[in-house]
Amino acid sequence: MTKLARVAFQGEPGAFSQEAVRQLFGERARSLPCQRFTDVFDALVKKTADAAVIPIENTLHGSVHENYDHLLEYDVRITGETSVRIVHNLIALPGVRFRDVRRVFSHPVALNQCLNFFEENPGFEKAPFYDTAGSVKMIAEQKLTDAAAIASSIAASLYKAHILRRSIEDDRRNFTRFFLLRRASPRLKSEAGGAGPWKTSVVFTTRNTPGALFRAISAFALRDLNLTRIESRPLRGKPWEYLFYLDFMAREDDPRAVNALNHLRELADFLRVLGSYPAAA
Amino acid sequence: MTKLARVAFQGEPGAFSQEAVRQLFGERARSLPCQRFTDVFDALVKKTADAAVIPIENTLHGSVHENYDHLLEYDVRITGETSVRIVHNLIALPGVRFRDVRRVFSHPVALNQCLNFFEENPGFEKAPFYDTAGSVKMIAEQKLTDAAAIASSIAASLYKAHILRRSIEDDRRNFTRFFLLRRASPRLKSEAGGAGPWKTSVVFTTRNTPGALFRAISAFALRDLNLTRIESRPLRGKPWEYLFYLDFMAREDDPRAVNALNHLRELADFLRVLGSYPAAA
Repeated sequence: MTKLARVAFQGEPGAFSQEAVRQLFGERARSLPCQRFTDVFDALVKKTADAAVIPIENTLHGSVHENYDHLLEYDVRITGETSVRIVHNLIALPGVRFRDVRRVFSHPVALNQCLNFFEENPGFEKAPFYDTAGSVKMIAEQKLTDAAAIASSIAASLYKAHILRRSIEDDRRNFTRFFLLRRASPRLKSEAGGAGPWKTSVVFTTRNTPGALFRAISAFALRDLNLTRIESRPLRGKPWEYLFYLDFMAREDDPRAVNALNHLRELADFLRVLGSYPAAA
Repeated sequence: MTKLARVAFQGEPGAFSQEAVRQLFGERARSLPCQRFTDVFDALVKKTADAAVIPIENTLHGSVHENYDHLLEYDVRITGETSVRIVHNLIALPGVRFRDVRRVFSHPVALNQCLNFFEENPGFEKAPFYDTAGSVKMIAEQKLTDAAAIASSIAASLYKAHILRRSIEDDRRNFTRFFLLRRASPRLKSEAGGAGPWKTSVVFTTRNTPGALFRAISAFALRDLNLTRIESRPLRGKPWEYLFYLDFMAREDDPRAVNALNHLRELADFLRVLGSYPAAA
């Protein structure tokens, strides 16, 4: 018998984060829904969870900055990533027909991502709610027969509701990238990676001198290491200076990565490797 | 007689944006408070305002991403910048003493930036409100004698309230950078700049190839042009590709800047100069 990993994520059961958990763990996980992102990190660090899954960027809205900040505050390692396509479905209780629906509950961001659907169906009232999956839970608990919710298909099956319309989102190129996190530990092993490409995430500050960012990035370019992402965040206590979060394609122990990181250490006031993991397809 | 410029900003009269307007225009402006950032851009483009002032980044919270996106959507030019130190004051109606105060109204972000003050004064209840200056307006309109607000000194004088405690914020290194915007037009003249340094802001996309960002940045580094800021935003419709917003120290018509921008044009799929302006001190 394999022990199930306890995996913390933010949101109600059925949230898109739970779909990320499923993609990363299959059936080998027990979900641990948390209210806030800090609760997710706390659960991992205080060992009530074995792993955590957090959203880090969305292709329509950009970075989840709060989580970039937490990656630095908590002693965790990124050991995996996955990308979930955000598919919004119109969900109602069994027996409720499309023409019965008057109000549609969901998180305001989800409602705003289905504007074409609401234009084509002007009889539907948008009802903002605190969570996508939570709105399915609510209509199930309150047994609402004139209402629907917008949420993931996983939320529909979880709360025994049914899908009235699939994929009603305006833009199908709506993806969220998630990180899989483990507690930092010298005994931490890499995830099984297969033969595919690896990615490494680092965070650093440069000295506040002309050309500093260019030289930092050159540590990777000079070794033909491809950068896939750069994100800056303000450095607390030093107005107009920045932390840079950077992802590059290579495993941390690849000789070119080792040399690039040593080179960057010469240039950076501060450098931390956040993790090395198999790149999502 | 000089005609006053009509300057749009987001927030109630007395908002920190109005302090930015004062720093940029002195007494030569008539304020045009707007509800949302899109209203500010609309007012400028539809000519109900002659200029607009928008926050673009804060040293504690980072970029105002919505405004980065609007800079691309609207046909405007950045013609100035300024930096405002965010000083939070405890403000009450005349006659109200410190010991009379039970509830303190302000925007949740401002309440959260004064946590030490609330710890030292456990009898004060934090009362979240939609706006900092708006909370002063509200206690004045409702003539509350057991309440105070946290807001700027400009809000205190505007609503004829008085300051009970000055500068109660936890971190004095709290600055917001603002852009001054004008309508884009071939006849647009630069602001009077004096002899100080200039800054130029651009936005571009790179081809999605290894080393593309490095080569883009090298266009500036090879000409000793100092980058002061880089910010990335998702590119709509192209998952995992990015727009880069970049500020560098030089006037747009400086020969080195001209060469750097021509060089960047060779490398970029898309490039727009957002403006060139005297750098804030």
